[in-house]
Amino acid sequence: MGKIWNHNKIAYGGDYNPEQWPEEVWEEDMRCFKLAGIDIVTLNVFSWASLQKDDEVYDFERLDKIIKLCTENDLKICLATSTGAHPAWMARKYPEILRTDFDGRKHKFGGRHNSCPNSPVYRRYSSLLAYKLSERYKDNKNIIAWHVSNEYGGDCYCENCEKAFRVWLKDRYKTIDEVNKAWNMSFWGHTLYDFDDVVAPSNISEHFPLFGRDRTQFQSISIDYRRFMTESIVDCYKLERDEIRKNTPDIPVTTNLMGFYPVLDYRKFAKEMEFISWDNYPSPHETPAEIAICHELMKGLKSGQSFCLMEQTPSVTNWQPFNKLKRPNEMRLLSYQAVAHGSDSVMFFQMRRSIGACEKYHGAVIDHAGRTDTRVFREITALGDELKKLGDITLGARSKARAAIIYDWENRWGIEYSAGPSILIDYRREVTNYYEVFHKNNIACDLIGPDEDFSKYDLIIAPILYMVKGDMGERLEKYVAEGGVFATTYFSGYVEEHDLVTGAYPGKLKDLLGIWVEESDALPEGEKNSFTRDGKTYEASILLDLIHTEGAEVLSSYNEDFYAGTPMFTVNSFGKGKAYYIGCSSDKEFYKDFVLELCEKADISKELSNYEGLEAVSRYNDSGSEILFLLNHNKSELTVKLHADMTDAINKTEYKKGQEVTFGPRDVMIFSINE
Amino acid sequence: MGKIWNHNKIAYGGDYNPEQWPEEVWEEDMRCFKLAGIDIVTLNVFSWASLQKDDEVYDFERLDKIIKLCTENDLKICLATSTGAHPAWMARKYPEILRTDFDGRKHKFGGRHNSCPNSPVYRRYSSLLAYKLSERYKDNKNIIAWHVSNEYGGDCYCENCEKAFRVWLKDRYKTIDEVNKAWNMSFWGHTLYDFDDVVAPSNISEHFPLFGRDRTQFQSISIDYRRFMTESIVDCYKLERDEIRKNTPDIPVTTNLMGFYPVLDYRKFAKEMEFISWDNYPSPHETPAEIAICHELMKGLKSGQSFCLMEQTPSVTNWQPFNKLKRPNEMRLLSYQAVAHGSDSVMFFQMRRSIGACEKYHGAVIDHAGRTDTRVFREITALGDELKKLGDITLGARSKARAAIIYDWENRWGIEYSAGPSILIDYRREVTNYYEVFHKNNIACDLIGPDEDFSKYDLIIAPILYMVKGDMGERLEKYVAEGGVFATTYFSGYVEEHDLVTGAYPGKLKDLLGIWVEESDALPEGEKNSFTRDGKTYEASILLDLIHTEGAEVLSSYNEDFYAGTPMFTVNSFGKGKAYYIGCSSDKEFYKDFVLELCEKADISKELSNYEGLEAVSRYNDSGSEILFLLNHNKSELTVKLHADMTDAINKTEYKKGQEVTFGPRDVMIFSINE
Amino acid sequence: MGKIWNHNKIAYGGDYNPEQWPEEVWEEDMRCFKLAGIDIVTLNVFSWASLQKDDEVYDFERLDKIIKLCTENDLKICLATSTGAHPAWMARKYPEILRTDFDGRKHKFGGRHNSCPNSPVYRRYSSLLAYKLSERYKDNKNIIAWHVSNEYGGDCYCENCEKAFRVWLKDRYKTIDEVNKAWNMSFWGHTLYDFDDVVAPSNISEHFPLFGRDRTQFQSISIDYRRFMTESIVDCYKLERDEIRKNTPDIPVTTNLMGFYPVLDYRKFAKEMEFISWDNYPSPHETPAEIAICHELMKGLKSGQSFCLMEQTPSVTNWQPFNKLKRPNEMRLLSYQAVAHGSDSVMFFQMRRSIGACEKYHGAVIDHAGRTDTRVFREITALGDELKKLGDITLGARSKARAAIIYDWENRWGIEYSAGPSILIDYRREVTNYYEVFHKNNIACDLIGPDEDFSKYDLIIAPILYMVKGDMGERLEKYVAEGGVFATTYFSGYVEEHDLVTGAYPGKLKDLLGIWVEESDALPEGEKNSFTRDGKTYEASILLDLIHTEGAEVLSSYNEDFYAGTPMFTVNSFGKGKAYYIGCSSDKEFYKDFVLELCEKADISKELSNYEGLEAVSRYNDSGSEILFLLNHNKSELTVKLHADMTDAINKTEYKKGQEVTFGPRDVMIFSINE
Repeated sequence: MGKIWNHNKIAYGGDYNPEQWPEEVWEEDMRCFKLAGIDIVTLNVFSWASLQKDDEVYDFERLDKIIKLCTENDLKICLATSTGAHPAWMARKYPEILRTDFDGRKHKFGGRHNSCPNSPVYRRYSSLLAYKLSERYKDNKNIIAWHVSNEYGGDCYCENCEKAFRVWLKDRYKTIDEVNKAWNMSFWGHTLYDFDDVVAPSNISEHFPLFGRDRTQFQSISIDYRRFMTESIVDCYKLERDEIRKNTPDIPVTTNLMGFYPVLDYRKFAKEMEFISWDNYPSPHETPAEIAICHELMKGLKSGQSFCLMEQTPSVTNWQPFNKLKRPNEMRLLSYQAVAHGSDSVMFFQMRRSIGACEKYHGAVIDHAGRTDTRVFREITALGDELKKLGDITLGARSKARAAIIYDWENRWGIEYSAGPSILIDYRREVTNYYEVFHKNNIACDLIGPDEDFSKYDLIIAPILYMVKGDMGERLEKYVAEGGVFATTYFSGYVEEHDLVTGAYPGKLKDLLGIWVEESDALPEGEKNSFTRDGKTYEASILLDLIHTEGAEVLSSYNEDFYAGTPMFTVNSFGKGKAYYIGCSSDKEFYKDFVLELCEKADISKELSNYEGLEAVSRYNDSGSEILFLLNHNKSELTVKLHADMTDAINKTEYKKGQEVTFGPRDVMIFSINE
Repeated sequence: MGKIWNHNKIAYGGDYNPEQWPEEVWEEDMRCFKLAGIDIVTLNVFSWASLQKDDEVYDFERLDKIIKLCTENDLKICLATSTGAHPAWMARKYPEILRTDFDGRKHKFGGRHNSCPNSPVYRRYSSLLAYKLSERYKDNKNIIAWHVSNEYGGDCYCENCEKAFRVWLKDRYKTIDEVNKAWNMSFWGHTLYDFDDVVAPSNISEHFPLFGRDRTQFQSISIDYRRFMTESIVDCYKLERDEIRKNTPDIPVTTNLMGFYPVLDYRKFAKEMEFISWDNYPSPHETPAEIAICHELMKGLKSGQSFCLMEQTPSVTNWQPFNKLKRPNEMRLLSYQAVAHGSDSVMFFQMRRSIGACEKYHGAVIDHAGRTDTRVFREITALGDELKKLGDITLGARSKARAAIIYDWENRWGIEYSAGPSILIDYRREVTNYYEVFHKNNIACDLIGPDEDFSKYDLIIAPILYMVKGDMGERLEKYVAEGGVFATTYFSGYVEEHDLVTGAYPGKLKDLLGIWVEESDALPEGEKNSFTRDGKTYEASILLDLIHTEGAEVLSSYNEDFYAGTPMFTVNSFGKGKAYYIGCSSDKEFYKDFVLELCEKADISKELSNYEGLEAVSRYNDSGSEILFLLNHNKSELTVKLHADMTDAINKTEYKKGQEVTFGPRDVMIFSINE
Repeated sequence: MGKIWNHNKIAYGGDYNPEQWPEEVWEEDMRCFKLAGIDIVTLNVFSWASLQKDDEVYDFERLDKIIKLCTENDLKICLATSTGAHPAWMARKYPEILRTDFDGRKHKFGGRHNSCPNSPVYRRYSSLLAYKLSERYKDNKNIIAWHVSNEYGGDCYCENCEKAFRVWLKDRYKTIDEVNKAWNMSFWGHTLYDFDDVVAPSNISEHFPLFGRDRTQFQSISIDYRRFMTESIVDCYKLERDEIRKNTPDIPVTTNLMGFYPVLDYRKFAKEMEFISWDNYPSPHETPAEIAICHELMKGLKSGQSFCLMEQTPSVTNWQPFNKLKRPNEMRLLSYQAVAHGSDSVMFFQMRRSIGACEKYHGAVIDHAGRTDTRVFREITALGDELKKLGDITLGARSKARAAIIYDWENRWGIEYSAGPSILIDYRREVTNYYEVFHKNNIACDLIGPDEDFSKYDLIIAPILYMVKGDMGERLEKYVAEGGVFATTYFSGYVEEHDLVTGAYPGKLKDLLGIWVEESDALPEGEKNSFTRDGKTYEASILLDLIHTEGAEVLSSYNEDFYAGTPMFTVNSFGKGKAYYIGCSSDKEFYKDFVLELCEKADISKELSNYEGLEAVSRYNDSGSEILFLLNHNKSELTVKLHADMTDAINKTEYKKGQEVTFGPRDVMIFSINE
């Protein structure tokens, strides 16, 4: 296990950009931080322009001052490399550093995430800056983490990228014939004769917008370009990280991710990061389960290791269409939800509100009014106080989930690029449909990647497992054969990693599931069919598979239309385990009944599942002792009967099993379970 | 009359792309085709890249094998020229071949329909390929048609096109002054001094998007560019066709069209095609009438000559937002509907499903599962069986319609480019409104072009005849004067062929109609007025003309608003005939009452019109004998009392006049009428 | 005061483009004009191409003829300079003249408003043309105004503009450090080192579309670019004007504006215009108040001086989605509404309908039918008759408003570019919400700019005064201190002129208002809160401020949510006056109750306020005598009891105080008040 960094409590602080203010403001900042119990700041996120003035001249004077000030004030430092936006002079002098967008437009200087990841100039100067920073500050003991770049994102379609893509393809496929095969280029006579025939897939080559979506004519090319683009950006990250390691091999390196962000395959990043950090910005209409699943996804990137909540707003965002205030207690509730799901920090964007540019109306610890007598500052101070009392008991502690849901970025790309059968197929939504049952019933459930060790789990659900890559089919068979319970759904098992169809659906999962799918009916929006099981009737929607069993047992069939009576829900005994197939999308009742049945079969018990709006999450520390988080997501009070003896981890009050505890609206309690 | 090609039954087969699979699959294909009664394949649709490897080297080896195999298996061949997508190497070596889009973006290699029609390189190499193919396979007796390119479409705005446009203009107008006059260039001071001042009309010159539509500032330029672009593409077709004719003067040449596809004026194509072929892909919400009108439009392109249904899906499409399965019997029903309306073939895209790229989820005769025990394959086999029994009796047979509706592409362009009076004016919809009455009442009605011989018909309806070109006004006057019945509507007679207004509306139709239109009120979406006739009140919507009669008789006037009492529906006696004017869009009741009244006036009788969901269509062969198609579009049974003695054309059962026959859901029967 | 031009009655006429027709049509035009009482024509709006044939050769022959004809027919002439669209040859020869759009696309020849305002070629040739025209026609006494260009609009992002922007910045800020400060460029490391680092803010630099809106990452840059672009275009105007002045120093110069057109800051234009002229094209769903506010905005540009209604349609527009006819009397009603609000003209676009291009379906005095026996022509003639009778009594007459609403273009830019707090914040809508109460109650209310002399008014409302520029805060304090009543709303006082936040909101208005705003809750669309005052409950929506008073008195607080009881509506006594703050958007009942209360406090009385649909507006001429316009906006009759002795200004009938007068639907009467 181990902690993610050298800190002895939940880190409390956030992004701090003193370079935007005159120095007289800095002292006031320090005073406020102290008041609020802030003990960590992320520095230097966007300062490249001021650190490097031209090809030769660097100037660290102001950063020296800032770091000195923070160090003197006992603040831990998460030091960023500043490479999330390049300097204006660099864009002017080396236009190659600028990106070309999906419409083929070469951009000018502006914005952020604005560097071409395959620009030699960008790579050279960004890694050099990482080297210089780590060399300069390597002896500062307050620096406990490196924060490379910021929220990596976007993509580029310039000539440098196009050339690099050709090299990437040559590495991967060796010959152009293998590329042709992997991309099925005999279709529409697209056969390539030379690597130089390859162009970047974009709106001026294979893509075009349709039905408000991005559609490609060659899914395989587009998926490979996404892979290549992810790796190009990961390479930028690695170049910086490796320079840093030369100087500070013991300080962990991270970069802040963004949950379900679809453009980059975060599993490739995770392999190169010492710990995961991420930025949590739910919109007001997101449910607790929809937020929890993001934490689980992020935690799952490094197989359950605890992570850093790098950013959240203390009060309000600015970039949503309607930026609603976080309600009283909501910031505390969401902070503890992050901790419950594995965070070892509670960090904010931002410490002080900018006075200009596009984030000036984003919430901050210190607002434009600069006052400490505000609701938000009071809530921040109260939480700072609590976190001190909570101490280190949760640091590095992990969950003990016996159930898991598979989520795979490449699978999502395959589904979203697919021309047909239905634009209503929504991978993230369907994954969440299943996750919500676990969440509502307070059953721990991990989000895992396709390469995870399946044997750790008793139950694995893989909604819409469209792309079955490499030996995944065999690994799933082994998992079930040895006693695992597995479930998958419609539009699964269609293709291998190049998006090539592998025969009758569900392809490599056919034996495991004991079925084959003859046809699938895509119902237009609003149309429904239904199926009945144990006297209950459920909705069938989106894509309706017409199944033939080849060994599987039929659990239910359609009620209506010409395929009334045709199986759509089956279970197959395979070795010691069971494999379920659900041939359509359904309604919340179905997901609930089915997932709870699976948990029962897998002998996964649930505690505290009878309280509407109560989230109960446990972390287990090195010594195996359990810390239990109880979160009342209701806007009203909730009384809970405790299921064990436990001690309030903040004020140390002891409770007995069976005792009732009343939570205020949006209230949270944290307990050490007494064994 | 005559048949479209050398085949003695309804051709049954479709697009076959064996080049996407290893040869071992080919033999399995042949086995399946035999099972299913397939007797024709379209080959070589997208193989340019494999046929031509660089400027010099051609390689026909694999195509030789494929043709040999098909020939040995007694399959007729529709041989495509493969020029619907250029090879990647050609795009790399000759970038001029790539298109520049409507936003001025030069494209890279990708997609299909991707060649600039005015590229000398494209023209040279595409026609050379057509020559080489026809020379190589000229002695193969199984080849019964040439299929040039594929689904021609799109447009180009590159410099080559711009230059060619100037040449086209010089040919057409001789002087720049004539261009200025035709385009009304004194407006906004657009006067051109030289042909070099002409630029292509696009989003970076005269066009811009508004209200979700494409709007132009000079309709005349944009319409001329559409004409030019159509002719440019027709020229590409002709270049290939002429090369083919050098080698195989007796094998007919076609290219596959796409129904109401608005971008190209198909009448210009039709003149150069030996027979029409087209691809029928209705969406699930299209009605039988909406599909029938497409067949009629296509058939009308060559004045009623029978056509080839080149593509339809056996089961499912992949490119619609929701790709619903064709229901049991639906493929048979739609196949026979095509035959009833004039097709001499039933052909599918595609024979075997691709495993990669954007059409891999499009239905096929042989599915990814590769099985012949599926619902779809069984239906295909059953139809194959029937078509053999049906034999040749329908080949080349024609309809005998006495009514016609005019549909003109250039008229559509004029209407859709028009800035004002209302974006709700929908030419295709209004044409369909009138057609639907004929269809529902089983009265034959042709879709004709503006140059058709009007004297063949007793009744002609021209909904929204906005553009009255050349001598069309005089020709319509002659038609009515000699006894014809004619009807037209609001927004008619406004402009001549250059989109220039010709005076008081309806311009050149004023005398014929005996009215003039003082004003037209465009009602916002949802607003309605009404009018009453013979005690029935109908809706008035979209555009409401305020009419003055000048000789015409008023049939009805508006009920509401400041123009209550103002005429909007008139009839004018002109020579021996009558000319009707309907000054607004209306509701289904009106279209029904009015069209049936017209038919009665024109003494056009209807048979079998009292069956909801029954489509009855007759074809008459060379000897004049009638083949009657009865199609039950209902999802339930339907019993029909026959109106004559007739013989089932498939199983030869005889029926007497007055006998009742029961059709299953979506059932079809074909009869020879006994005289 | 003074009249705007040398004419002794309300000018009646409009845009006349005889160059689009052969000369034989011109005489017919003259006949029609005479019939209709037309006495002014705007000539030469789009004739550059015909006036200048290449760099050297000019040809005024046809214009000579047209001017001679009009002069002989006693028509006053408003002579345009024709520079609203450049000639095609100029675009071909000097591509620099063409604009580059917001997506970075260099345009080709086409459209209008198509010249780069920073093109040296455009500036040279446009001002030279203005010189030549004014020199040539300087002795024609019928020319009473110059009309420079036409409906200036749009913007450009080409390299010339980019370079000019750098020069503009250097003029304004002197050093790049000052630019960095004004734009807060330390944010995201955007610090510039050199003026050459500056690029134009567009979709390929700082902008991107979001939520269907244009969003920028640096508001300060984007606002400065808008300022620069306005000034660039104003410079083009000034260059022409100054050339004209050399020849005809006594003929006033104008250009036609477009009401609330958001792209250009019309206050900068107004300073350079001798009088305001504008084009009034309401859509059918606009209310009388929504039209009236446009007139007031335009009139306010030159502090109440009367203006010229340069364009309106006599009947119908062509560019709206549904172009509804103006109802009977509606043209007269809208014409007199313009006059009531300060117009000294009633002018149409256009005198004769074009036969080709995008405005051919726009209404005209002479329609395509060319007839004078139409409803529209009859209404035009009747109005022409009346205007002759009305004579000169209204010319130059002004309003006497004691209330004003502030509207500022730069403020609008700041609000619309703002990233957060809510996309529902709608400046124009909120300004209109307040204006509507004045309008409905027939209380005169001016629309004024931020630099107006506030002391002229007893009541000033500044809805959403987001940007408080320069000394405006102090000037408002002075105004209130001296006894003025002031009101402002949520999202006010945030920033200074560079969009930099000035501390706790409402910033520089804090002392005046005696409050500070701790937080603001942006409610998602459809969500509401409420507040109650004097027993009436009003809606609270869009953005809800949570206020702390610092001296102000609380007038109302929220009813619901966690901030129930928190103040949102306050009044502060400041010197001799009062300053109100309304912390949210509300409903019509609130605006009515509040504005009427303010008027009562400011002792502003209302007359004739009890008639639904009656608009009563007064103008006062030089001698101080009042002309009263009564406009019945109802579709039905209305009877009004007169509040004073008065004389019908058209037919001279006398009325006594208390006498009742009945107006027909959409009827208007104009009275001289007898003192």
